[in-house]
Amino acid sequence: MSEPKFDVAGIGNAIVDVISEGTDEFLTANKVEKGAMTLIDEDRATELYGVMGSAIEVSGGSCGNTIAGLAALGGTAAYIGKVRDDQLGQVFTHDIRALGVDFTTAPATDGPATARCLIVVTPDAQRSMSTYLGAAGGLTPDDVPEDLIKASAITYMEGYLWDPPGAKEAFLKAAGIAHSAGRLVSLTLSDSFCVDRFRTEFRELAKDEVDILFANEDEIMSLYEVDTFDAALQSVRKDCKFAALTRSEAGSVIVADGEVHVVDAEPVSQVLDTTGAGDLYAAGFLFGLSKGADPVTCGRLGSIAAAEAISHYGARPQADLKALVKDKGLAV
Amino acid sequence: MSEPKFDVAGIGNAIVDVISEGTDEFLTANKVEKGAMTLIDEDRATELYGVMGSAIEVSGGSCGNTIAGLAALGGTAAYIGKVRDDQLGQVFTHDIRALGVDFTTAPATDGPATARCLIVVTPDAQRSMSTYLGAAGGLTPDDVPEDLIKASAITYMEGYLWDPPGAKEAFLKAAGIAHSAGRLVSLTLSDSFCVDRFRTEFRELAKDEVDILFANEDEIMSLYEVDTFDAALQSVRKDCKFAALTRSEAGSVIVADGEVHVVDAEPVSQVLDTTGAGDLYAAGFLFGLSKGADPVTCGRLGSIAAAEAISHYGARPQADLKALVKDKGLAV
Repeated sequence: MSEPKFDVAGIGNAIVDVISEGTDEFLTANKVEKGAMTLIDEDRATELYGVMGSAIEVSGGSCGNTIAGLAALGGTAAYIGKVRDDQLGQVFTHDIRALGVDFTTAPATDGPATARCLIVVTPDAQRSMSTYLGAAGGLTPDDVPEDLIKASAITYMEGYLWDPPGAKEAFLKAAGIAHSAGRLVSLTLSDSFCVDRFRTEFRELAKDEVDILFANEDEIMSLYEVDTFDAALQSVRKDCKFAALTRSEAGSVIVADGEVHVVDAEPVSQVLDTTGAGDLYAAGFLFGLSKGADPVTCGRLGSIAAAEAISHYGARPQADLKALVKDKGLAV
Repeated sequence: MSEPKFDVAGIGNAIVDVISEGTDEFLTANKVEKGAMTLIDEDRATELYGVMGSAIEVSGGSCGNTIAGLAALGGTAAYIGKVRDDQLGQVFTHDIRALGVDFTTAPATDGPATARCLIVVTPDAQRSMSTYLGAAGGLTPDDVPEDLIKASAITYMEGYLWDPPGAKEAFLKAAGIAHSAGRLVSLTLSDSFCVDRFRTEFRELAKDEVDILFANEDEIMSLYEVDTFDAALQSVRKDCKFAALTRSEAGSVIVADGEVHVVDAEPVSQVLDTTGAGDLYAAGFLFGLSKGADPVTCGRLGSIAAAEAISHYGARPQADLKALVKDKGLAV
């Protein structure tokens, strides 16, 4: 097995976030499910955007955020995802390439526009997301280059890929190539509603395909349909070589080869917007893992990257993550 | 003269800002003039965007920011400016309407794309701007509705309108309508390089057309080609009924009917990005003026709105300006 060219290759829904502030009353009045990611069609996207406040646009997508964070930490990364050849597609492409990420998926030249996620951030820093998948839904197995997956130590994918049908096939193709090449496969469960939609398939994936699983408390309990976090923890220990389970301010619990480690959250002076906390945790963890760090160091890297993400609007890192990690005395 | 429907109607270049962080070395290497607004063509825009870091997109344009700030303070406002019917044009339109601003200028259906301002913010919080005017350059006198200008207490315009030829004509048409209807005309000099380009015309405007002039120290000294701030101050006293001259952390100096008032800057805990400081100062000042506040209160309103703008990335207000003003004990 040759030395990998990339630490991580990510496959995800390529999305531009449209972020505005709003109240709980706004969510209720406009039937937006608080704290969740809800899929919407183009008409609903137009309607909701019409009532949202003034916004900022910033490249997003769960896996895109993770890959951006990994690159910001100094890792080598590639991204696979579908945009259209429109202005928001150019924004997404520019931003991920500007971080040094290899992104060469051909944009769609017709059909739906680049995907948008309409995010309303409430004063309690929670984000409620309404996603119009648009061009992202057009990802197919043909968009997964075999060479790229073979050349990546870890292939990382988001559960959200189960929503558009072709993207799921792309996921399975990539997982097959990665394992045949002796590489690792990683999955984030993305969202507890997403787990509700695809529980059976995700449980099979965790058992058969996934070497490194990311989930938060709600997602992992939903996956195994259990009432306590510990019950979910004991189940995932049997299924996956590595699992990183995030618990917001309670930190994270890591499974590594059957052993359990508990890692504190990083203190944050002000939580402004929790968008991207999980995505950036995964970035830190995968960065550590690809550099051969021990599981607790991987978890601390995740916590540091997540803490940076929630201290500002938008899910991509704004501070110099490499310097931040160095300041905390973590040499990787 | 009937009661005005709008406190302020603004005419400006409708621009979406693309904001990224960069170093002084980046500016030098890419020949970006620090602290200035430089006009660029489409090729240069593509080239510069290609080397810029990952960015956020947020509605901007000097006059657009002022009008947004005025609406956020509780004023009634209209905006006139040209976008294209593309994604960034939709973003601009959505954001300004979401603040309750009347914006009905018909978008261009062909020709150049919506204007973009590529902004690099250096660690000293200065912004260096490269503007591709695109569709904004297509504004003509036909885009200025006579009824709207007549129905506005103040018509506010940016010096930048002198760059695209048709927009200058739109400006002059609006000034004529406003004065015929007994309304006030206001101008911001925009930028000292802009003053360099149009000094003779701007000096005539100040003398003959402008009731309320906004300028910073550099701009007003450049306008009158004098070496001291005081010399510029004495000149503008003769030309304009009102002038508000901003001096960054040294506050502002206000001329009102020949009298001079000195107003302190509002303290800011951290200056992150000075983009929009002047635009938001004008918003506060015009809001006060339209509500009949005294000149010093107008200046303080300007200082408060400017202080909010420089404490975050992007030129549009993020905090609740109305509440902020109330907290400071300013009743208008």
